Amino acid sequence: MLRVYFGDTDASGMAHYATHLMYLEKARTEWLWDAGVNVAETNNNDRHFIVRQVDIKYHRPLELGELLTVTTTIAEIKRASLLMRHQILNGDTLLSEADVKMVYMEHGRPARLPEYLQEVYDGVRGTN
Amino acid sequence: MLRVYFGDTDASGMAHYATHLMYLEKARTEWLWDAGVNVAETNNNDRHFIVRQVDIKYHRPLELGELLTVTTTIAEIKRASLLMRHQILNGDTLLSEADVKMVYMEHGRPARLPEYLQEVYDGVRGTN
Amino acid sequence: MLRVYFGDTDASGMAHYATHLMYLEKARTEWLWDAGVNVAETNNNDRHFIVRQVDIKYHRPLELGELLTVTTTIAEIKRASLLMRHQILNGDTLLSEADVKMVYMEHGRPARLPEYLQEVYDGVRGTN
Amino acid sequence: MLRVYFGDTDASGMAHYATHLMYLEKARTEWLWDAGVNVAETNNNDRHFIVRQVDIKYHRPLELGELLTVTTTIAEIKRASLLMRHQILNGDTLLSEADVKMVYMEHGRPARLPEYLQEVYDGVRGTN
Repeated sequence: MLRVYFGDTDASGMAHYATHLMYLEKARTEWLWDAGVNVAETNNNDRHFIVRQVDIKYHRPLELGELLTVTTTIAEIKRASLLMRHQILNGDTLLSEADVKMVYMEHGRPARLPEYLQEVYDGVRGTN
Repeated sequence: MLRVYFGDTDASGMAHYATHLMYLEKARTEWLWDAGVNVAETNNNDRHFIVRQVDIKYHRPLELGELLTVTTTIAEIKRASLLMRHQILNGDTLLSEADVKMVYMEHGRPARLPEYLQEVYDGVRGTN
Repeated sequence: MLRVYFGDTDASGMAHYATHLMYLEKARTEWLWDAGVNVAETNNNDRHFIVRQVDIKYHRPLELGELLTVTTTIAEIKRASLLMRHQILNGDTLLSEADVKMVYMEHGRPARLPEYLQEVYDGVRGTN
Repeated sequence: MLRVYFGDTDASGMAHYATHLMYLEKARTEWLWDAGVNVAETNNNDRHFIVRQVDIKYHRPLELGELLTVTTTIAEIKRASLLMRHQILNGDTLLSEADVKMVYMEHGRPARLPEYLQEVYDGVRGTN
C-alpha cells in the first residue's frame, strides 16, 4: 500500500501526473524483485530495463493522504521486451491505468530476457 | 533550453522516465503563459487543467548534462479539452515524443475553454 | 520500511540528496497520522505545517534497492513549532540524520499547535 | 531564471521543501560547468561530488509561477571539499538560503579537488 504524501501532490491539491509513474515503478520493481530480479545487482552488471513507451489514462485524481494499491501484470512478453499493465486503485475504484513497454538491455543493447523471467511469466499467465 | 541535471537522472545514468513528464510540463506551462494563461492566477480561482492521458515514446535516453529543447503544438482542441503534442529534441535528434490530453476544470468540473485559448489555437494552427 | 528505487537515485548510482527529504516527509507524515493529524483534512481547512529549516548530514550513500527505516522523534516543542529529529538507517547503520523545524500555520499565519500534539509529545517524551 | 511549475509545488500551494534542493543543484551545476567541470564527463570517469551536509533555511514560501534566481558562492574550499552558499531570490527578496558541503570523490574515495577549481575559487574570492 502506498500513501499520497505532500511531495507527491501539486498545487492543484492532487497527485502530480508524474507521480503516477513513480508509483508504477515501485510496483514494477517489487514485482521484478519477487520474480528474482535484483535490480541493483543487474544494474551493477550493466543490465537494466529501459522504458520504451508509456500509455497512461488518469481516471480520477489521487488525493493527499489517500491509500493506494498498484497491480502489475504482464500483458505481453517478447524476446527482449515486456509489456507491463498496471492499475492504481483505491479499494475497487480504478484511479489510473497504464501500459509500460520495457526493453531489456545488456551493455547498452537490447538483449534476450533472462530465462527465469520467461518462466515467471508462464507461471503468472496461468493464474490470471 | 533545458539541461539534464543529476536530480533528473537515475542509477542507469540516464534521465528517469518520469523526468520527461517534468520537462513536458515546463514547456506546456511556458506555452500557456505565452498564450495568456497565468497558471498561478487561474489555480487560485479554482481553474486548472488536469491531465487525462499521456502517450509517450522514449526513442533515445537523455544523458546527464545534455541540453534539450521541447516543442509544443496543439494537435486538437475541443470544448473543454486540449490535445498537446510535444517533442523532446537535442538539435534535430528526436529523443522522445508525447501526446498529452488535458481537460480544463473550473470548480472541480470540466468547463468550456477560455475564448482566448481558442483564438491562440486558431493562430497557432495557421503557422504550423 | 522503504526501498530505494531507480527514481530515487541519480547517475552517481546512489540516492539523490533531495530523496532523503522525501523519505523524511513520509516518516513524519506517518508519525503525525499516528498522532491524530490527518494532513489531508487539516490541509483542506487551511492548516498545515511549513518547514522552516532543515539540517541534514549524509553519512553514507543510499544504494539502489536498499531497504531503509526512518526514525522520528520530537526534539523540541514550542507554542507554534516542532523540531523533529530523524535518522535514516539500514539495520543499525546510520545513513543520514536530520533536524527539521516545522511551524504550524492556520490561514497563512503561525498558530498555536493543536492540544493533542502537545499531549502526544508529553507521551513520547516519557518513553524516550 | 527559474520558474516554479506545478510539479515543483505541493498541496499547500507552495513549492515543496525538497524542490529547493533541486533548484540549488541546478545553480551549482551551472556554476561548476562555467568553472570548467563537465559533470557528465567526470561522472563517466567515476569522479563526482557527493553532498555531505545541507543546512537550509526557508524564509518565505515559493509560489506557483514565481520567477527565481539562485546565487552561488564558495564559502570555503579545502583539499577535498567545497562549502557552497546559495540564496534563492525573487528580485531582492530572500526566499531561502543554504550551505551545502560537498566532497569530491574519485573511485569512491575523497580526493584532492582538481587544480582548476582551486584557481576558479581564487578568482571568485577576488570578486566577492
